Amino acid sequence: MKYFNDLADFSIGEIKELVALARRLDDKPEPRVLEGKVLSLLFLSPSLRTLISFQSAMARLGGSTCVISPEMSIHGLESRSGIVMDGVAAEHIREAIPVIASYGDAIGIRAFAKRENLDDDLNDREFRELISLVDKPYINMESAINHPCQSLADWKTLDDLGIPASGGKLVLSWTWHPSPLPFAVPAATLHMAALRGMDVTVLRPEGFALPDAIMNKARQAATLSGGSVTETNDCSSAMQGSQVIYANSWASARHYGDKRAEDQIKPKLGEWCVDETWFGNAASDCRFMHCMPVRRGVSVTDRILDGPRSAIIAEARNRMLVQMALLHRMLSGS
Amino acid sequence: MKYFNDLADFSIGEIKELVALARRLDDKPEPRVLEGKVLSLLFLSPSLRTLISFQSAMARLGGSTCVISPEMSIHGLESRSGIVMDGVAAEHIREAIPVIASYGDAIGIRAFAKRENLDDDLNDREFRELISLVDKPYINMESAINHPCQSLADWKTLDDLGIPASGGKLVLSWTWHPSPLPFAVPAATLHMAALRGMDVTVLRPEGFALPDAIMNKARQAATLSGGSVTETNDCSSAMQGSQVIYANSWASARHYGDKRAEDQIKPKLGEWCVDETWFGNAASDCRFMHCMPVRRGVSVTDRILDGPRSAIIAEARNRMLVQMALLHRMLSGS
Amino acid sequence: MKYFNDLADFSIGEIKELVALARRLDDKPEPRVLEGKVLSLLFLSPSLRTLISFQSAMARLGGSTCVISPEMSIHGLESRSGIVMDGVAAEHIREAIPVIASYGDAIGIRAFAKRENLDDDLNDREFRELISLVDKPYINMESAINHPCQSLADWKTLDDLGIPASGGKLVLSWTWHPSPLPFAVPAATLHMAALRGMDVTVLRPEGFALPDAIMNKARQAATLSGGSVTETNDCSSAMQGSQVIYANSWASARHYGDKRAEDQIKPKLGEWCVDETWFGNAASDCRFMHCMPVRRGVSVTDRILDGPRSAIIAEARNRMLVQMALLHRMLSGS
Repeated sequence: MKYFNDLADFSIGEIKELVALARRLDDKPEPRVLEGKVLSLLFLSPSLRTLISFQSAMARLGGSTCVISPEMSIHGLESRSGIVMDGVAAEHIREAIPVIASYGDAIGIRAFAKRENLDDDLNDREFRELISLVDKPYINMESAINHPCQSLADWKTLDDLGIPASGGKLVLSWTWHPSPLPFAVPAATLHMAALRGMDVTVLRPEGFALPDAIMNKARQAATLSGGSVTETNDCSSAMQGSQVIYANSWASARHYGDKRAEDQIKPKLGEWCVDETWFGNAASDCRFMHCMPVRRGVSVTDRILDGPRSAIIAEARNRMLVQMALLHRMLSGS
Repeated sequence: MKYFNDLADFSIGEIKELVALARRLDDKPEPRVLEGKVLSLLFLSPSLRTLISFQSAMARLGGSTCVISPEMSIHGLESRSGIVMDGVAAEHIREAIPVIASYGDAIGIRAFAKRENLDDDLNDREFRELISLVDKPYINMESAINHPCQSLADWKTLDDLGIPASGGKLVLSWTWHPSPLPFAVPAATLHMAALRGMDVTVLRPEGFALPDAIMNKARQAATLSGGSVTETNDCSSAMQGSQVIYANSWASARHYGDKRAEDQIKPKLGEWCVDETWFGNAASDCRFMHCMPVRRGVSVTDRILDGPRSAIIAEARNRMLVQMALLHRMLSGS
Repeated sequence: MKYFNDLADFSIGEIKELVALARRLDDKPEPRVLEGKVLSLLFLSPSLRTLISFQSAMARLGGSTCVISPEMSIHGLESRSGIVMDGVAAEHIREAIPVIASYGDAIGIRAFAKRENLDDDLNDREFRELISLVDKPYINMESAINHPCQSLADWKTLDDLGIPASGGKLVLSWTWHPSPLPFAVPAATLHMAALRGMDVTVLRPEGFALPDAIMNKARQAATLSGGSVTETNDCSSAMQGSQVIYANSWASARHYGDKRAEDQIKPKLGEWCVDETWFGNAASDCRFMHCMPVRRGVSVTDRILDGPRSAIIAEARNRMLVQMALLHRMLSGS
């Protein structure tokens, strides 16, 4: 495996093999398989789960990680082209990326959406520029429009929970959040669930419809797999018979990059906070998923997070396990 | 071993076995015994020695560490219950702790005393709340009221120095410090020395007596071991025949959380600074110990720190060695 | 090997053996040779390449690193002697260094020039004080006046590029930079190239001649090896027949520590920026080297950095490889 950037680059069979490998490595550790191997991690955006799940994943296979993070003295990393660097920035990304990559056998890169230009973010323009500087295997650790490691972990989590692929019903719900968030997680989740063959409903308030590019990619995946993709702003109809609700938040595409305008069409705090009342006509054992970080009392109530519906800790742990599978496939030479 | 939170949870025999194991691992390295094992470290308070002594300890046994520290983008970690998280904090400790724990085979947690409420700190209320979220083996890396890794290292250091357990005389002395410091180290040290069977004298100015809960716990340990615990504000009588002085500083329990009031009863700078003059009637080879960081010219003079009495570098190195023993016992399955 | 502080401490034969070992370890990994070994890294100055090239180097040999860096809560590390530490600084370097060293099998230290007193910096006064506190093998990761790991990497890079030692011509050129930079890299590079037996020309504007101590040390090396050292402010004569240009920037020794005075004698931005026009009478395949970070459009143009002359990424990767050789020699016991 030369890169892991998008679940869409893999067949359903290949994804199932990765999930199976994650399960095998959880059951039967291989603590030497990556001995002497190094994964470079470049975080241009902050991280908690992604950082330590990758560190732990490499360590459990006998390898190591080298981390460059925003907390380090790299705030001045320049990325503009053709610039005369006579200001604060001491280093350009055109040198930093290949150098960091050269110290690893593979590189993981995280760069959140800039949320300035919708087309740039939908096309993952920044991440494509970054990886064009890399001549090693690479992993997308969340870009403007994708988060494939999260989606692979979620696929495994859905399997673990016994939620059927064909005929399984997942609601991807917008929830309240104080900030306009990127499309990476909702886009990746929607595509993943559709590719898994599920009937997916996007539940969101007016003004927060996902962009066509995201919906169309998911619909194509559904065509492949026999799943379906619909959208609504009605909670009750969305939740009808649902087996899992995946909560997230995202910006209004209509007012992209304009928080003030978005705030004017945004529902009130508390109106889109997942609570037990949402589950009235869902499957009785309908589960709750979230990629975290999650805001208590804002996106979801304590009752749900602390109750039996929540699968979020197992979901987070699956990040480590599927990344072990990725790294095994990428670096073990087998 | 499922947890390491308090020396009081262990028998004297068990402690001696841990010290012996530390010694064995120093003499005969076991660089593969923890291969593929991961220790998660969560620092809610800063660290130098603790961080790298744990990292080195795991590495020397073939394992790895994953670190979440205050320098990282986790400043907004929320810990209050029932909160509506619509402010800066993006993540709650109720998710962060189990997630971090899930990436490790064990977790170490550091959380200094808040120094707002004396009873809360004496009861280690915050640390107990944090570990209630963990379903893995855990290690106290310094809480409001305990620092068991330091105490185990100090036990070994006293052994290394040839200071007798039964009949050995240790002075735990308050020293000047610009800030009111937590009770964790004095409480842990006093209990450790008493449990080791030593005759311990707490030397402190008026107004800086250790709280009853701390003194009583140490007296109980002394009853078990045949040691004794006394207190005084008279340096000369305290130092009479002492074989080791353990310097530290702590807040006034009388004015807990009120620095201004404490400053009014505090001795003058220089009056409680350990110097060669203190050792007039001590054993001629009386040694100096300190957990560090230590303030030169404030808590102790350069002459002592740079002279033959000082055992502090060996004491710090013992942190690594005893933690190797702990981790070996906790994670090797043997 | 007990320390690696200066190429001048090694014979040419020993340096060639280190380069050969670096090459062997690149071709034939030894992922277990340093298992259980720990390298402590103390950064008193920031780092990107040095940090992760050392981490990767240790990891590839099966060892580990523990890092103390300026990003951590150590900003208050005191270094003055005889001080009464009643201010912000909580820890003195006299304790911090031996403690950090005690957790490793070796220690690497970085401390940039203070640029207050020229003689202090030329004599590497601070670094000498720091290492006087260490009783372990140590590595200079860039001090006021040396950067031996960079020079060893550069030696290997020159070999890799096929640039002859005897009779090879290298230009060490000053370039524009907004800040007065230390002499460490130019001093180390000049000495390395002279010791390798090359004909070295220092190209710099008036007022930016390297101090006599630096020039004389390089001339002595040239005497040993059969190389030569000259200096000029004329680009065309310097570049005549050159096979490699090594760009860097450094402070004016005439106005050391006085940026305002230096700025008055400094050439204009753009006048000392390496560009294709510089290479008119150089060897046709004359290469460009730089230790990085490098400022685009200021020290060198995009055209050079992105073109076929540039060897800087390979040069940076050689940092990792030669450090593997150092660490292997220092810690493997073979």
